[in-house]
Amino acid sequence: MFRKLVTFEEAKKIINENFTPLPIGDEDVALLEAYNRVLKDDIISSLDVPSFDRSTVDGYAVKAEDTFEADEDKPVTLNISGAVFAGEQPKMVLNKGEAVEIVTGAPLPKGADAIVMLEDAERLDNQLHVYTPATSYLNVMKKGSDIKCGKTVLHTGQVLGSSEIGVLAALGLTKVRCFKHPMVAILSIGDEVVTPGKLLPAGKTFDINAYSLSTAIVECGAKPVFFGVAPDDKVALNKTLTTMLASADVVITSGGVSIGPHDYTSQSIDSLGKPGVVLSGIAVKPGKPTTVAFAQNKPIFSLPGNPSAALLMFYLLVRPVIQSLCCRDLTEIRSIRAFTGAKLFSAKGRRTFVMVKLVLDAEKGRLIAEPVLGSSGAITLLSDADGFIEVMENQQYINKDEEVLVKLFKQI
Amino acid sequence: MFRKLVTFEEAKKIINENFTPLPIGDEDVALLEAYNRVLKDDIISSLDVPSFDRSTVDGYAVKAEDTFEADEDKPVTLNISGAVFAGEQPKMVLNKGEAVEIVTGAPLPKGADAIVMLEDAERLDNQLHVYTPATSYLNVMKKGSDIKCGKTVLHTGQVLGSSEIGVLAALGLTKVRCFKHPMVAILSIGDEVVTPGKLLPAGKTFDINAYSLSTAIVECGAKPVFFGVAPDDKVALNKTLTTMLASADVVITSGGVSIGPHDYTSQSIDSLGKPGVVLSGIAVKPGKPTTVAFAQNKPIFSLPGNPSAALLMFYLLVRPVIQSLCCRDLTEIRSIRAFTGAKLFSAKGRRTFVMVKLVLDAEKGRLIAEPVLGSSGAITLLSDADGFIEVMENQQYINKDEEVLVKLFKQI
Repeated sequence: MFRKLVTFEEAKKIINENFTPLPIGDEDVALLEAYNRVLKDDIISSLDVPSFDRSTVDGYAVKAEDTFEADEDKPVTLNISGAVFAGEQPKMVLNKGEAVEIVTGAPLPKGADAIVMLEDAERLDNQLHVYTPATSYLNVMKKGSDIKCGKTVLHTGQVLGSSEIGVLAALGLTKVRCFKHPMVAILSIGDEVVTPGKLLPAGKTFDINAYSLSTAIVECGAKPVFFGVAPDDKVALNKTLTTMLASADVVITSGGVSIGPHDYTSQSIDSLGKPGVVLSGIAVKPGKPTTVAFAQNKPIFSLPGNPSAALLMFYLLVRPVIQSLCCRDLTEIRSIRAFTGAKLFSAKGRRTFVMVKLVLDAEKGRLIAEPVLGSSGAITLLSDADGFIEVMENQQYINKDEEVLVKLFKQI
Repeated sequence: MFRKLVTFEEAKKIINENFTPLPIGDEDVALLEAYNRVLKDDIISSLDVPSFDRSTVDGYAVKAEDTFEADEDKPVTLNISGAVFAGEQPKMVLNKGEAVEIVTGAPLPKGADAIVMLEDAERLDNQLHVYTPATSYLNVMKKGSDIKCGKTVLHTGQVLGSSEIGVLAALGLTKVRCFKHPMVAILSIGDEVVTPGKLLPAGKTFDINAYSLSTAIVECGAKPVFFGVAPDDKVALNKTLTTMLASADVVITSGGVSIGPHDYTSQSIDSLGKPGVVLSGIAVKPGKPTTVAFAQNKPIFSLPGNPSAALLMFYLLVRPVIQSLCCRDLTEIRSIRAFTGAKLFSAKGRRTFVMVKLVLDAEKGRLIAEPVLGSSGAITLLSDADGFIEVMENQQYINKDEEVLVKLFKQI
């Protein structure tokens, strides 16, 4: 198999070269359940919104030209010939010299082309004194001015939020075609790993990765298929991996990657199909023992057992693959500028990711990125961190007080 | 009722003065379903993680002091007396001059205090030549060094992401106590409003707000209780509002707020209980016809029918209330600096929110905030916008090319 470490950039390139994301199918989703889903098709409006010229205020529908002479000292007087309420289709026609009472949202009667607001006029019985001239289409939302029939209002790949779902409702739709959630199978490997909720025998640890990675899978818009914990047993592992590959679009394992005689992960993954393992070992810290394979055009990631390394490699390598599967934009990890709170060293020849916590230096009015202390295998290393700083392969260190880009795990 | 408009700042103050968020209850949530939930209690660890001194590499467990003399030219030689695999509790004791084979994740045997990595030693049969001295606890993750028994690892109110759920799994937990989702009842009012999926009669429009606001409710961590559309009918509206108040923690209506004789919303809301309506009309644009009431210590918001105004007032006034109910941090709306692409005018005496789209000016390397054109009632005004700029009450305008803060609706 592969013995030479590849660089981080090479690893990303190898993954891209070996993977052509195929559409994973689509389904109808009820509008009220479509939040954060990805639109399958362009949406073309089949109607005008609004479907009629509507009043945007409470007032009086008029012919604008009847009011052109209106003045605060010398109002124009019109005859009130009727009223239109919201939801009604007015049957009257407005003639020269007339006004019709109208409420917000109601359709303009034929012959009217402007609305005089309540506060710009005075009503005396059936007479209306208008004190301010109205321009044509004043306080009128014209037919189709929000959405024109035939217009493309939303595009393939758009993620649906509140205003996009508002637009779909405006068109009278109750459901929308969305890409399916990619299914991502997840397994923790190791004789030392015990499922939470059970008794913890001496020498063993509770499974962390299947839980943290499942959550990270949900976070990026996919669905985890949870396989729990597998012992270091070659036959059982092969069987489980075959089932995982059949039941998901992406397969992730963590652990079982040490050089001990009981670790078969890499061999098992390689045997799943062609091309098999495409890289094994990346010159990064943490995350070195990462293996990537492809079989049946599905990506398979074997991540380290170290919980913070596994989650970091997920963010950096797996998430972009999952997002391309559900046609989400490959958004870069959010980042923020800050100043280093300590000198940061790189691991020789490896891209080093230093976990940091952001602290506000109120006196200097700037953010300080403090390295999070802790063993490299600690899950608390990540839960205490807001993000990480990259120290490049060719950098020996980053000085204290240098301005750097902190890539964020969470919103701050 | 109230006739005087209050300022935007007064509106926020009046809401805060009238509302004491009460806990809305809590429930056990399975770890795999706890993503984005809010933690009810501090989590105190009942165990050490790891629960034993463990090796972080593949190599040989040794007594560090046995290797102090080791040198590349003059290795120290130790006798290999056994092996420890992951998940095993070693029974052997390591004596002076001995080494024990060990894999990543395995517990150190008694007597050992450091691990020599594979690449820093050479094995010949049962003899190990060590070329580099090991310091005490080199390549060892000490018992409790990730999480100490008795330590508070997560805090009340923390939102659970992948690393927090990893921490809970590390403690062997399978479920976690979280605050319940606040229930938010949502209703659109108006004779002109038709539920999507039905035929659209002349003079009517499809309901937008119940859909866009339901989605915004989901987005901020609450659950919508969907009441659809109510006509402008006093008796029916009173009945529906009473049901809404009984079935939710927050009540939101939109529309039915014009001055026409058919609009009873404000009266109906006021009759629900004490103190009733606390403000009616805010000096903002858009969003002026907003009414806020309290009954049974529950907030009731009557938002405008105009879809973009309703959603904007939701973001600015309703969302903070919902977030305080589920004990989420009252995060400010995210903002970004940009330069105005046009002169922006304020509505006289009213806080004006101008919807803008961000465009990159590649030549000058800066973001331009272009005002989104469109009728004020248009839902596309919001779906086309990335965020908004506030023009303050005492500002007449903001010039073109001025640097401003754009508050963001969506991630960009």
